[in-house]
Amino acid sequence: MTAHERRGGGRRSKASRSGGGIPQLPWQHVTNPYAPMQLLNEEQMDKLHRTSMRILSELGIRVMGEKVLALFETAGAIVDRNENIVRIDESLVMAALKTAPSSFTLTSRNPDKQITLGGNSLVFGLVAGPPNVHDRINGRRQGNLGDYENFIRLAHHFNAIHIIGNQVVAPMELPANSRHLDTYRANLTLSDLSFHCSAIGRGRAVDSIAMMAIARGITVEAMRASPGVTTIISVNSPRLFDEAMAEGLIAMAEHGQPITITPFTLMGAMTPVTLAAALAQQNAEALFGVTLTQLVNPGTPVMYGAFTSNVDMRSGAPAFGTPENTKANIVAGQLARRYRLPYRTSNANASNAVDLQAAYETGMATWGAVLGGANLIYHAAGWLEGGLTASYEKLILDVEILQNMIEFLRPMPFEEDDLGFEAIKAVPTGGHFFGSEHTMARYETAFYRPMLSNWQNYGSWQEAGGHDALERATLLWQQALHDYEEPVMDPAIREELDAYVTRRKEEIGAGEP
Amino acid sequence: MTAHERRGGGRRSKASRSGGGIPQLPWQHVTNPYAPMQLLNEEQMDKLHRTSMRILSELGIRVMGEKVLALFETAGAIVDRNENIVRIDESLVMAALKTAPSSFTLTSRNPDKQITLGGNSLVFGLVAGPPNVHDRINGRRQGNLGDYENFIRLAHHFNAIHIIGNQVVAPMELPANSRHLDTYRANLTLSDLSFHCSAIGRGRAVDSIAMMAIARGITVEAMRASPGVTTIISVNSPRLFDEAMAEGLIAMAEHGQPITITPFTLMGAMTPVTLAAALAQQNAEALFGVTLTQLVNPGTPVMYGAFTSNVDMRSGAPAFGTPENTKANIVAGQLARRYRLPYRTSNANASNAVDLQAAYETGMATWGAVLGGANLIYHAAGWLEGGLTASYEKLILDVEILQNMIEFLRPMPFEEDDLGFEAIKAVPTGGHFFGSEHTMARYETAFYRPMLSNWQNYGSWQEAGGHDALERATLLWQQALHDYEEPVMDPAIREELDAYVTRRKEEIGAGEP
Repeated sequence: MTAHERRGGGRRSKASRSGGGIPQLPWQHVTNPYAPMQLLNEEQMDKLHRTSMRILSELGIRVMGEKVLALFETAGAIVDRNENIVRIDESLVMAALKTAPSSFTLTSRNPDKQITLGGNSLVFGLVAGPPNVHDRINGRRQGNLGDYENFIRLAHHFNAIHIIGNQVVAPMELPANSRHLDTYRANLTLSDLSFHCSAIGRGRAVDSIAMMAIARGITVEAMRASPGVTTIISVNSPRLFDEAMAEGLIAMAEHGQPITITPFTLMGAMTPVTLAAALAQQNAEALFGVTLTQLVNPGTPVMYGAFTSNVDMRSGAPAFGTPENTKANIVAGQLARRYRLPYRTSNANASNAVDLQAAYETGMATWGAVLGGANLIYHAAGWLEGGLTASYEKLILDVEILQNMIEFLRPMPFEEDDLGFEAIKAVPTGGHFFGSEHTMARYETAFYRPMLSNWQNYGSWQEAGGHDALERATLLWQQALHDYEEPVMDPAIREELDAYVTRRKEEIGAGEP
Repeated sequence: MTAHERRGGGRRSKASRSGGGIPQLPWQHVTNPYAPMQLLNEEQMDKLHRTSMRILSELGIRVMGEKVLALFETAGAIVDRNENIVRIDESLVMAALKTAPSSFTLTSRNPDKQITLGGNSLVFGLVAGPPNVHDRINGRRQGNLGDYENFIRLAHHFNAIHIIGNQVVAPMELPANSRHLDTYRANLTLSDLSFHCSAIGRGRAVDSIAMMAIARGITVEAMRASPGVTTIISVNSPRLFDEAMAEGLIAMAEHGQPITITPFTLMGAMTPVTLAAALAQQNAEALFGVTLTQLVNPGTPVMYGAFTSNVDMRSGAPAFGTPENTKANIVAGQLARRYRLPYRTSNANASNAVDLQAAYETGMATWGAVLGGANLIYHAAGWLEGGLTASYEKLILDVEILQNMIEFLRPMPFEEDDLGFEAIKAVPTGGHFFGSEHTMARYETAFYRPMLSNWQNYGSWQEAGGHDALERATLLWQQALHDYEEPVMDPAIREELDAYVTRRKEEIGAGEP
């Protein structure tokens, strides 16, 4: 049975429609059945590749961290110890691509929610990283653990969200050197999804692996063959890997946990203003990180990450969901497939409010990601204000956009009966199909049923209060939190998790950064 | 020089950026350089085609109008005179497709604004048909000539709008049988764009041809070789052409003016609930109309029109911008190309307000249309509330969406200098490209500059009033109306137009419907 057949059988089951809850699609493995879009031809792709190789071999990447320098040196790279610059040639990159798998899985404590990253799979990740949080009732405020936990509940409740990002909001009231333990615990107890850990230093990475192992009731060693957490390694573009990130990368790779290498490449700021140059630089930086993962531990699952957008050249402010960002999302997919790597990108926006701009920028970026054949769309639910705010209403908007996309990607049924000749024959010219047998047999499941869209006529809509989609979004996240059910966890496992957190907090004290 | 080269040279010229006006892209011939998306494979396309042919030959189409029946009878169709049902076989359709051109032009009184419909051209049309109008200052009200004229001014002002639809709002205060004359005059005097005429009956079609001829200073006869107006013939699906529409079609075809045949096919209401059946029926109805145009006058330019979406099965209310509508937009393009006909579709939405829903539904439908290789996206600017309201703020939102799409469709520059190796070399690791020579030479034109998006940081945005995109849209249409410049018209032509309207109003009196 294919994923789509399973989906066809399971979608809009009684369970998901009953009880007056918010209508939503069931949990499903989303696959993209269509050929990815090709914006560049083979010649242009070769030019990009060659430019990237020149960047790596002639200019090199600066790496902070002795371990990394030593690894590259051993592998035959040219290492400039004065500048900490590593120059690698194409053969080193190609050797790494031979051992990097083209697809991998992530397994959480609920094996039914295992996700695949690679092939034509498509996974949506929760927003990650904002220092602030916003909703229309309480306004904009600093991130805190209460809101953090709510976002995890929403991610668990909405089936369109497949994986939790790294710190959906920063719980700013907690000590910076141990708050990752509180957020990991929230991820593992309030949801049954896999998650991204923080890879700023070795400790945060190892803690996530240990805690996921506890939640799954397996050993850290067993996680090697069945990864459960993942991380994003951001490159400090242009051409710089800092030491904490390198240490996080090494820790993850040593444990066989998947890593995404994502250059942070805003055209005009961290790269040249031209899209071709930005893509060449992004490609060089991503492939450098990919190579490093394979030097640490050949076979480590690694994703090709892209985060290329532009800035507002009048202010330097970042912009997302622009035409340039959309093109970058598509071409980055062409590059990832060239190297047979799973592909991660985002569907970000730069709006300060959950408004028309947030909607159309997110839409543009989402289409770019999907047409580009993305395997992971990160920040896919809840990202606002260029990533500085996690928004409750934006999460609702995004889930609707993601569900629309899931339905768009569902292949069209095409059996004889779907072609409907007999049904058309049975209705007179100028008549209607509302009561026809063909309709009655299918009307409950024929079309995607949205949660946010309102299709009442104007009069009925006005009578019901005339609430626009933003107002409805506020009602929806409140209802979702109300309807949320915490996934059951064995008390012994819960105890073990708590004990781990307590012990590690004591160990960390004020001693770790 | 290709269209894109012309665009490259002309875009963001000083003229379009000077004077503090709203930044916008210049008038341009938009082309879609990418291969259209294929949702259906060849076997599925054949099944659709065969089902459509069975609908036409076994079930037939009901046509109100003696002329049409006679035309089909002469051509060898099987005509049931009791039921007014015409049954045609595939050979008749194929003969028509041999004489229908695959591409045509429309020329308005400004030859620089000639548009091409066919090939990989992409043309955006103003909203057409709503009885109501809305803006945030004056609220929702009945259509009237004052608002009608404002929409024509906005269509003229914004370069992303290439053609005026048929009655952007109905001027309800004017007599129904002659208001088309007032709207045609507004189209011709307040803008220099081509437009869709009303084809409800022969008179309205002939008036539009005569008035465009006057505005262009040519004869009606000369318009035959150089069409200037066009129309949409809507099919009363399922399988019914009414008499007034048939007469309008005949009048247009006799004068060599282009026609779009658009079945109005909402799945679950006017077609079966299944998408495959809806497309088969749409295809049969469209091809029937195409065949009729060629029987009237072989060689008449004719477009393949699609308007397939779904209804809310709980209420019967129409829905647009749904996943089903998006798929239909893509497959209809596959069908149009199979028959080598230019392709018209829409990017409609069903929201009652200019809100998140309006934005994401419009975005979904727009992507479906563009990926489907649409040549004309009708209702592309200003459509709200399922087509019952023309909205000023929605027009602004739409122009931004269309401009984003125009920029997305611009091929990526890929010269050596665009690849930027030397620029990357010149910036140290961890540095930035803001002041680099490569950036300075390009920063003004490197990226699309939006009119509606705001990329200020949160603090600056708040200080400036914290206006969301909807509030900014209100300011923008007001500014556009303020900045609008009426295109110059020879007073003698203006006089002739006025005289035509006066004479025709006298002729019509209360005598024509």
